[in-house]
Amino acid sequence: MSSPSPLHIALNPHIIEMEYAVRGPIPQRAAELRKQGRTTIPCNIGNPQALGQTPITYYRQVLSLVEDPSRIARERQLTRLLKGNSDPALSDKDLLSDYVLDLAENFLAQIPAGLGAYTESNGPLFIREAVAAYIDKRDKVGSTPGVNADPANIFITNGASEGVKHIIELLVTGPNDGIMIPIPQYPLYSATIKKTGGAQINYYPDEDHGWLLNREILQEALASARQNGVTVKGLVVINPGNPTGAILNRQTIADVIDFAEENHIVIMADEVYQENTYGAEFFSFAKVLNDRKVPLFSFHSISKGFYGECGHRGGYLEVRNAPVEKSTNRPLIELLQKLASVSLCSNTVGQLLVYLMVNPPAEGSEPYPRFIAEKTAILNDLYEKAMMIREGFKSMEAVECFGRTGAMYLFPRLNKLPKGTNDFDYCMNLLETTGLTTVNGSGFGQKPGTNHLRIAFLPPKDLIKKVLPEWIDFHNRYVNG
Amino acid sequence: MSSPSPLHIALNPHIIEMEYAVRGPIPQRAAELRKQGRTTIPCNIGNPQALGQTPITYYRQVLSLVEDPSRIARERQLTRLLKGNSDPALSDKDLLSDYVLDLAENFLAQIPAGLGAYTESNGPLFIREAVAAYIDKRDKVGSTPGVNADPANIFITNGASEGVKHIIELLVTGPNDGIMIPIPQYPLYSATIKKTGGAQINYYPDEDHGWLLNREILQEALASARQNGVTVKGLVVINPGNPTGAILNRQTIADVIDFAEENHIVIMADEVYQENTYGAEFFSFAKVLNDRKVPLFSFHSISKGFYGECGHRGGYLEVRNAPVEKSTNRPLIELLQKLASVSLCSNTVGQLLVYLMVNPPAEGSEPYPRFIAEKTAILNDLYEKAMMIREGFKSMEAVECFGRTGAMYLFPRLNKLPKGTNDFDYCMNLLETTGLTTVNGSGFGQKPGTNHLRIAFLPPKDLIKKVLPEWIDFHNRYVNG
Repeated sequence: MSSPSPLHIALNPHIIEMEYAVRGPIPQRAAELRKQGRTTIPCNIGNPQALGQTPITYYRQVLSLVEDPSRIARERQLTRLLKGNSDPALSDKDLLSDYVLDLAENFLAQIPAGLGAYTESNGPLFIREAVAAYIDKRDKVGSTPGVNADPANIFITNGASEGVKHIIELLVTGPNDGIMIPIPQYPLYSATIKKTGGAQINYYPDEDHGWLLNREILQEALASARQNGVTVKGLVVINPGNPTGAILNRQTIADVIDFAEENHIVIMADEVYQENTYGAEFFSFAKVLNDRKVPLFSFHSISKGFYGECGHRGGYLEVRNAPVEKSTNRPLIELLQKLASVSLCSNTVGQLLVYLMVNPPAEGSEPYPRFIAEKTAILNDLYEKAMMIREGFKSMEAVECFGRTGAMYLFPRLNKLPKGTNDFDYCMNLLETTGLTTVNGSGFGQKPGTNHLRIAFLPPKDLIKKVLPEWIDFHNRYVNG
Repeated sequence: MSSPSPLHIALNPHIIEMEYAVRGPIPQRAAELRKQGRTTIPCNIGNPQALGQTPITYYRQVLSLVEDPSRIARERQLTRLLKGNSDPALSDKDLLSDYVLDLAENFLAQIPAGLGAYTESNGPLFIREAVAAYIDKRDKVGSTPGVNADPANIFITNGASEGVKHIIELLVTGPNDGIMIPIPQYPLYSATIKKTGGAQINYYPDEDHGWLLNREILQEALASARQNGVTVKGLVVINPGNPTGAILNRQTIADVIDFAEENHIVIMADEVYQENTYGAEFFSFAKVLNDRKVPLFSFHSISKGFYGECGHRGGYLEVRNAPVEKSTNRPLIELLQKLASVSLCSNTVGQLLVYLMVNPPAEGSEPYPRFIAEKTAILNDLYEKAMMIREGFKSMEAVECFGRTGAMYLFPRLNKLPKGTNDFDYCMNLLETTGLTTVNGSGFGQKPGTNHLRIAFLPPKDLIKKVLPEWIDFHNRYVNG
């Protein structure tokens, strides 16, 4: 009685229409090439450790202890045994610091069931308190205290993505609810809006002026949405920008807040690249907001910065001035809590990494010098690699790259392409020719008629040195082809 | 220009209506009591390590090494140094086995970027291959090979919940798309159906006959759905049952498959308690399905069984006979892949634990005896605790508990309650009086007019011995109150 062919049924049309270029056709083609034995360089995604960035030693030492708590006592005994041991293969240089051992012990004292138990759905209180303290310290203005973060409004999440999805799911009630997103944008936003069935409202930062954002640009998008009967509920800002790398200044952020306040729109601030400013000052939306009563959702992650712990999927969402549901009077925080509880909790190792991210080793502590050296080396290296690639663009015909260098990406504009081709064709050919895996600008959205690509500046310098001339060569032949 | 009051906006009505009792009012009241210094016993949720169950040593030794790979060489050197060491505080009994060290090394060789990088969205191929091999071994019938699992149809997920959500999201296209679920059920299902805006179609296993399930019961639910204009797309079966603990026999599973085939319905088999059968044989849906072409989604998890690694959020979803989207002809697997890719990947530690779950230490290997001893002790202990509580029911007036003992729960029926009260009142009073935190039957759904509670049989025996008389005493006073 077996059916002869697969069952044909209707499936969710929103998911059918959804797109996610970061893992789309170009990376899929790269995977095929790898299966055929070709070497590819995965610059399609901000995945630093996949390109050789080493994890911060301090984080991993603590994780390793907390996963196997019996090791803490054992390491203390080892210390006793090995102090002054003359065996060159194993000496006290291999010992863990008391600071790290104490930290692991202290962490476990606050979460006695260890990493194997579900936690509170929003994360254990002590981790949310640590996040709140970190935010307060980051946003303090001289000796003037700002508005304090509230642990009750912090949710620890599986990466930043989970928090973003929860907020968009809550805001969108139907096809006429709109979320404003920058173009270009990180496709998590367009995909999630599509999945919820809401309206994607594009706004266009001014590329030729360093991806400048101002109220006129926002106003124009809002007016056009309203003309189409769309109620704009939320406004996404990615700072530093993904894919553009642009970094917002304080005044621009204040303008965005004014705009949101006047138009009763909530702000979603994607601030996962806040450590990736390479010398520029980072202003959080929370800091600029201070005591103004505009709803703000801000997102952070352990995947970026100098941490690069993408695979561990940790992040947090901080809410300020949470809205209230208008027909039921239910606070949004309560609904968020319910959404989180259906997934039980985010993974505990990601939670621990969030805790470590907001608790770097204290100045003067044993692990401090190595931590700072590793952090500095990673951030300097990232910046130098970005500069090498930006420099390379000068040798490519009709390529322009605007804005400051932030995040982990460059988003150059390809002003000249062979007739009838676009950036997708370019990126696919670049992959086939050099193994370099990038994402076409259209995967992030771009002004009609323009072409771009996004490249993550993550490969080791040697590899960049090797592939950049190949790319330049490919480029100058391709655009004239 | 600050607004005087919080912004009032419309939020997603599906999320407003969604309920999730496992973390609902009773556990929330328990949290309040704990804040006041009261001791509570969290039997509202299957969270074994929160109640003192210790993790399997083998898993944690590997995790600890893989998080800090520098330790692998160091441990090998320690072995050299400590073999025969006479220090009583640290001797070769503390050494890690070569088997564990080799396994960690081998794991890292297959995932060279380590745990800090995003993996493929569905999980690395070698983990999916290991899962497929595990399924094939589990479902082999004597020397006759069954249908092999295909790694391309396996998705590693953040716990089983994530896979369940993806499938329901894909199946539901509007309010007339129905998913059949058992009553009582695990509220992940009702909550997710509500969130997607689909129709929840209840079917009622026969409690008085050990939660018997047959075609008539399914047929009745289907007929009533059709009468209401609902197209049933999916059928959820939880085996062993949550909250009932009931274990399905082979014939019942075959009947469910017949029913699904005839009615063009996909089966969602929640098999996360497959190790929790306490001597009864477990039949997977895949095994009974064999070469029949009925679409099957089966879910497994590292959170239950004897593993109990809830906090690490690992699981997998296996698809057989995947449907095809009827208007676009797109294979469901492709859409699932896209859904997974928007979250980038599940957390890598959960993935590693899935790998370890399907790769227990080989018979005769160094870690094998301890692994088996720990596994046996945990499962025996769980069963003994279930029996202690079941025995206690005999001393409670008008309490009946049906079906075999499976999963981690008992779901007794409360046949007598004071007029005007229900199981919610009972559970709340039980909490206030004894600290025992359970979930009212209505949180899972139940036949109208009946009352139940779910208790996870997880507390240490000492604690059960202490609280059980208090519960019996409370019960017999309350029901006559």
